[in-house]
Amino acid sequence: MAAIDVPADATASLAARDDRRHVLHSWSALDGPAPLVVTSADGAYFRDEHGKRWLDFSSQLVNANVGHQHPAMIAAIHAQAAKLCTLAPYHANEATSEAARLIAGLAPGDLDWVFFTNGGAEAVENAIRMARLHTGRYKVLSAYRSYHGATAGAITATGDPRRWASEPGAPGFVKFWGPYPYRSAFHAADEEEECARALAHLADTIMVEGVHGIAAILLETVVGANGILVPPDGYLQGVRALCDAHGIVMIADEVMAGFGRCGEWFAIDRWNVVPDLITFAKGVNSGYVPLGGVILSDAIAASFATRAYPGGLTYSGHPLACAAAVACIGIYKAENLIDRTRRLGDEIVGPALQAMQRRHPSVGDVRGLGLFWAVELVRDRDTREPLVPFNASGADNAPMAEFANACKRRGLWPFVVANRLHVVPPLVIDEQDLRDGLAIIDETLDVADRYCAA
Amino acid sequence: MAAIDVPADATASLAARDDRRHVLHSWSALDGPAPLVVTSADGAYFRDEHGKRWLDFSSQLVNANVGHQHPAMIAAIHAQAAKLCTLAPYHANEATSEAARLIAGLAPGDLDWVFFTNGGAEAVENAIRMARLHTGRYKVLSAYRSYHGATAGAITATGDPRRWASEPGAPGFVKFWGPYPYRSAFHAADEEEECARALAHLADTIMVEGVHGIAAILLETVVGANGILVPPDGYLQGVRALCDAHGIVMIADEVMAGFGRCGEWFAIDRWNVVPDLITFAKGVNSGYVPLGGVILSDAIAASFATRAYPGGLTYSGHPLACAAAVACIGIYKAENLIDRTRRLGDEIVGPALQAMQRRHPSVGDVRGLGLFWAVELVRDRDTREPLVPFNASGADNAPMAEFANACKRRGLWPFVVANRLHVVPPLVIDEQDLRDGLAIIDETLDVADRYCAA
Repeated sequence: MAAIDVPADATASLAARDDRRHVLHSWSALDGPAPLVVTSADGAYFRDEHGKRWLDFSSQLVNANVGHQHPAMIAAIHAQAAKLCTLAPYHANEATSEAARLIAGLAPGDLDWVFFTNGGAEAVENAIRMARLHTGRYKVLSAYRSYHGATAGAITATGDPRRWASEPGAPGFVKFWGPYPYRSAFHAADEEEECARALAHLADTIMVEGVHGIAAILLETVVGANGILVPPDGYLQGVRALCDAHGIVMIADEVMAGFGRCGEWFAIDRWNVVPDLITFAKGVNSGYVPLGGVILSDAIAASFATRAYPGGLTYSGHPLACAAAVACIGIYKAENLIDRTRRLGDEIVGPALQAMQRRHPSVGDVRGLGLFWAVELVRDRDTREPLVPFNASGADNAPMAEFANACKRRGLWPFVVANRLHVVPPLVIDEQDLRDGLAIIDETLDVADRYCAA
Repeated sequence: MAAIDVPADATASLAARDDRRHVLHSWSALDGPAPLVVTSADGAYFRDEHGKRWLDFSSQLVNANVGHQHPAMIAAIHAQAAKLCTLAPYHANEATSEAARLIAGLAPGDLDWVFFTNGGAEAVENAIRMARLHTGRYKVLSAYRSYHGATAGAITATGDPRRWASEPGAPGFVKFWGPYPYRSAFHAADEEEECARALAHLADTIMVEGVHGIAAILLETVVGANGILVPPDGYLQGVRALCDAHGIVMIADEVMAGFGRCGEWFAIDRWNVVPDLITFAKGVNSGYVPLGGVILSDAIAASFATRAYPGGLTYSGHPLACAAAVACIGIYKAENLIDRTRRLGDEIVGPALQAMQRRHPSVGDVRGLGLFWAVELVRDRDTREPLVPFNASGADNAPMAEFANACKRRGLWPFVVANRLHVVPPLVIDEQDLRDGLAIIDETLDVADRYCAA
């Protein structure tokens, strides 16, 4: 194939050569940089085929919350694999029933019912369908600067550039601006004003879109890939009030923020708000087996009491995936990971990043909670000009690529997106490893500082 | 929750009670019949919590091709779980590379590249995106009487009543009628005429929709859930020729028909046609771990040589799922399941069902290949009136429910849909078990015969 003549290194491993010859990776070009071949992993570390050991500050895609190859996870997968791997979604089995009971028990309020999917995108697709059928309305409001998945509905709800190539998208989606104090869409002076103005904007959007046509407001409780945007206190309460006032379903997308990442079972617990639907994936079983789902309130479930819910998938409630969820929830509890994550955020990561902000002119903003933090890099703290432009690639993105590579040279695998470093290690990370990783970031920020105005 | 007051049987198991209290099943109402709690499985059998052993003539949802709990599958899952469960899609690893190489090696022609997903719906979503970006066109043609999945794009492409509740769907989808000799949309007298007329209809549809706006023709190579409609010889060649003539991407949806079910690696191999994209799931690893994907031709892959493919998902190329695929493909080869499946269809299932058709007035049509057969039940062979109306439910569907229950009383778990029984056991089924299951069906058809006109 002339157009993709990727010269596989003759000394490369079979895994590397097969990868270059046969795998199209997510969000990637075939002739982009060769991926790392990972051969083993343990806790907060993974190792590549050249024997290099990496400190995983990405949790892969912010999914490996209990770390790599946790013995209790492996044991549970071994046991369930020996018992029953696969089952049609019209049957029941112990693993799926237990996972549903545990998840419903953790979810706030009367969110008592679980519809299982294979991942986050399908969870969002089904939550939208549930909201539409429950309300008899069609429009879905979601935020700019959001990511909800890459199937036709989820990608249309998504408010970042990954949506563009899939447009025109599905009908009935409307975008609004959420709170983002550091780059306020509302010219707000502080968090309190940002909160009030963001809610006023949402209320106005509902007004002009027409109350009686809006099925759902879909939002990431804490925005993930688009910047770890922690909502100001009062915002989620305000969204809940708007939903209540207008009969709109509130969908909290907790695919990335849920299951401990924010130092809460669900991020929304921090504000004591009860949504109508929660979408989840990733942390539910740390991605050891693909799993996602929707948690439904009693009221929404009641819409499907006698009318069959018109959605499904072959692997809904997959026994192996659900057994991994049961084990993972057990680990969160046994190792007290929720409290530990909150404490690590409050006592170690937050203070360390704030200290870096004082030392490094390239650090424009630091924000987060639990083990879910963003360091936003700028060329100038006064103008807040980002270190690279919006949706930069190639040469435009060189400063961030240089920063990422400098982290990698020091053995840290970073999660770099746009002009930000996200600090999202496994929740089980050893305290000293966490401090060591933060020290690497501190050192490496010198690279970014060089791009700053004098 | 007043509206769903499902009276859980006080003597029921914890698994049964949790299921009734917390699980929303695919395509189901909460207060529908209680699902069976399955506790173990082996080969072509599974066992419920009351100790009843069922002969699985459904392969669950036509996914468990190598049967339940195949030792080589369990061993592979155990080994990979001990090594590396989860990995971000931007990394590479041995299991994913090997699965991609094996799948590309099995796929026809120059279909050399694999994009992995979690299941069939996401495979279809991504195939559609690839076709659109490759061609720069937008419309997708798909068939009435088809099923492609339940995410927003896939459900809009779907041509059965499961689509209705999700409408209005995504834009850019157009339906055409495929060949179905028994209920010809074209008033054809025989298969040859059906083929010619179905192709003429498709050509006309392309003409009136506008050649230069059509990105893809998406079709199940052998239509699955909508009736196991085997295309007449020449049809798929004709679709290929239309696609070639007009620069349209041909997408063969092999989620159900592929990986041995039809007695071929891919169903399309039977007609020696090479599509541009193949979607797969189910049989690739028999559903032991959720996995699906798209196989791309070199020409389509070349569209993403330097331009990043704008789609992805957290669990793309999941190591555990891919290790299960490597093992499953190994089993197909080691046990010669492809040839065996073709032989069982030709020598046992086909002749047995044809004999039943002669004996039972309710059997209007019998069709299939490999271990993929439909028995279409009618009230009258002359008028071909189906045993139950299109999209029947409740009392309208009582004859089919009665038939299914009669199979179950005899220990056979049937795959019943609309007015049809689909005969889709695991490909590893013992010959005597296959004959025994067919004998049960033969006996049970007496139930359907009673509804036939005298």
